[in-house]
Amino acid sequence: MTRKTGIIPKAPVAKILVNMGAKRVSADAVDAFVDVLTNIAEEIGEQAVRIAAHSGRKTIQEGDIKLAAR
Amino acid sequence: MTRKTGIIPKAPVAKILVNMGAKRVSADAVDAFVDVLTNIAEEIGEQAVRIAAHSGRKTIQEGDIKLAAR
Repeated sequence: MTRKTGIIPKAPVAKILVNMGAKRVSADAVDAFVDVLTNIAEEIGEQAVRIAAHSGRKTIQEGDIKLAAR
Repeated sequence: MTRKTGIIPKAPVAKILVNMGAKRVSADAVDAFVDVLTNIAEEIGEQAVRIAAHSGRKTIQEGDIKLAAR
């Protein structure tokens, strides 16, 4: 599995797992979670860029993100 | 919209939008993107915790994250 470390940081992602009730989290689990979230973020981001371009804008706005995330 | 700032940081999330081709990004768009990603992370995290518990483990492992993200 390709690790996309260095984009979304590990610490807040691990914190979310603890917040959701995890007692312990393996290092591999944190890496996998970062990878999953980065992939999702890239898909939503790519779609938001397409949506803004489709509206003739170069600036990504809040509504582009919300629509892309649906 | 409730802002869950302070969990996933804004800078890497904005960077992902730029990486995906955004020329400019509004501040509200970054906030919305952080919020969307945090919600998704919490859903996946909660499911991963359930999956680990279902297997009788207290440690979240890589496979729990992968299964939760499907």
